Amino acid sequence: MQIIVVIGGGTGTYTVLRGLKNHDVDLTAIVSMMDSGGSTGRLRDEFGFLPQGDIRRCLIALSPDTSMLRKLFEYRFNKGKGLNGHSLGNLFLTALRDITGTEEKAIQEAARILNIKGRVLPITTTNCQLGAILENNQVVVGETNIDIPKHDPKLRIKKLFLIPKPRAYREAVKAIIKADKLIIGPGDLYTSILPNLIITGIRKAINKSKAKKIYVCNIMTKHGETTGFKANDFVNEVQKYLGEGVLNYIICNNKKPSKTLLKEYKKERAEFVEPNLKSNKKFKVIRTDLLDDIHLARHNPDKLARTIMKL
Amino acid sequence: MQIIVVIGGGTGTYTVLRGLKNHDVDLTAIVSMMDSGGSTGRLRDEFGFLPQGDIRRCLIALSPDTSMLRKLFEYRFNKGKGLNGHSLGNLFLTALRDITGTEEKAIQEAARILNIKGRVLPITTTNCQLGAILENNQVVVGETNIDIPKHDPKLRIKKLFLIPKPRAYREAVKAIIKADKLIIGPGDLYTSILPNLIITGIRKAINKSKAKKIYVCNIMTKHGETTGFKANDFVNEVQKYLGEGVLNYIICNNKKPSKTLLKEYKKERAEFVEPNLKSNKKFKVIRTDLLDDIHLARHNPDKLARTIMKL
Repeated sequence: MQIIVVIGGGTGTYTVLRGLKNHDVDLTAIVSMMDSGGSTGRLRDEFGFLPQGDIRRCLIALSPDTSMLRKLFEYRFNKGKGLNGHSLGNLFLTALRDITGTEEKAIQEAARILNIKGRVLPITTTNCQLGAILENNQVVVGETNIDIPKHDPKLRIKKLFLIPKPRAYREAVKAIIKADKLIIGPGDLYTSILPNLIITGIRKAINKSKAKKIYVCNIMTKHGETTGFKANDFVNEVQKYLGEGVLNYIICNNKKPSKTLLKEYKKERAEFVEPNLKSNKKFKVIRTDLLDDIHLARHNPDKLARTIMKL
Repeated sequence: MQIIVVIGGGTGTYTVLRGLKNHDVDLTAIVSMMDSGGSTGRLRDEFGFLPQGDIRRCLIALSPDTSMLRKLFEYRFNKGKGLNGHSLGNLFLTALRDITGTEEKAIQEAARILNIKGRVLPITTTNCQLGAILENNQVVVGETNIDIPKHDPKLRIKKLFLIPKPRAYREAVKAIIKADKLIIGPGDLYTSILPNLIITGIRKAINKSKAKKIYVCNIMTKHGETTGFKANDFVNEVQKYLGEGVLNYIICNNKKPSKTLLKEYKKERAEFVEPNLKSNKKFKVIRTDLLDDIHLARHNPDKLARTIMKL
């Protein structure tokens, strides 16, 4: 059985996990812990615990499709003073954190209760904030401030950092080293993907691991993060943090979404990512149709999982 | 196997269920739906659903002791803007109500998730409020306003009413009629016990049922509700709503709590209920030590369950 480790946290990782869940694999999700917005951000501020949002998404991705507990975990209150906008899954994880005493135990218990396939591990248990230095040297702190973005979106992000400096979670390091395949992306480059790779222990583990290292490139750019990016720009940024020659495979979608959908995305200033990459001595490029464009230009979980399984 | 139906909702019912759960019985809890205070009251106001508090307590009583889901259901947030004071179990039931569409389905799903022994049924699915007419003819509306109390606590409650007039829940009526034993009490007389008995369909079902009808008298009086009450006052009030000759057994604790504990209770103006009742042609009185006075003057679940089983 292939040992597959997926690193990320956002909706991209959710998609990868949803697809791989249906294959006969030993699956581990290693999850970003820098979220500071929305329901997660409110709980993080008020309880001082580590953020739950990305953990919750991965737990849901790996739980049985028909489960009522899964539905409860996904549930979001749409009214109620103080409750409005809160995800019940986040509240659940907050309570579990309080009852069990640590984030690790809380995640383990949630995984057990939800009867998930595989494991979910935090990338770090250090309570840290994501920061970005823009090309004009302006500093933005807080994942949500970079994500939304609350800075001039025309300015490129020059460098990411984490304060305080986090320690890689030991079990996550072990999982990376033991993996047969390591999947990075898709997902918001500066807020979901790179924050994981700038943790020294994680970067070292990825370099040390004999796994096939696979980067899944995004289908669409994101305003204020990756405006104007083509596939090679994504890969260059990942390599900037991970080192050249580390990635073995790049998976790129080459199917353009419909004109109607592209118009919708244009409103949010997001554009199709040109798959302008070819295989070279360092990495092999798989360009294929991965599109699931019923409502959004997203990766189709099954197409993506099949592509990963074949490598 | 004995078919036992417990009618109530508050901590008294919790105690009865906790004890009976360990016996080989077919157990059903029929639960008051008039709670309007605390976390339950806030959710009731904000979401417009039926109150969850008493349902939650009964579900917890009947769930396995070591279950983590049980702990989560019991968890109460002690900080967080808008979250403080909320019970996670209440939020869970609110979300389930929203997902499933009805209170009945929400309770069934929660029962399944918590893997409870027996069944929990609402006494009504009508969204109604409890009201009381005091001896000076003042009208107080809202369970929590009677419970706290927000009226002159010296004034006795002359009459209870429900607005709008609720319909007895059909499954609850069926359960009462099929029961071998029907347990009423212990619990706050005017806010947990009698509100159930003033629903016409429930009163009729109790009268029609061939079950042994057992009333468990409280150990302590409650300021503003039953000040100065002795056992016979409790029974008289129950009979006022249920009719004379309906109750077959009265279970009374005859062990006085320690002086230290009585002093504590005196601060809240609560006193020991004198077991001043004897068996007569209409009902048999069981006077026995049912006290569990480690921290509070409460019924011991095991002693009470054994007493009920013997009848």
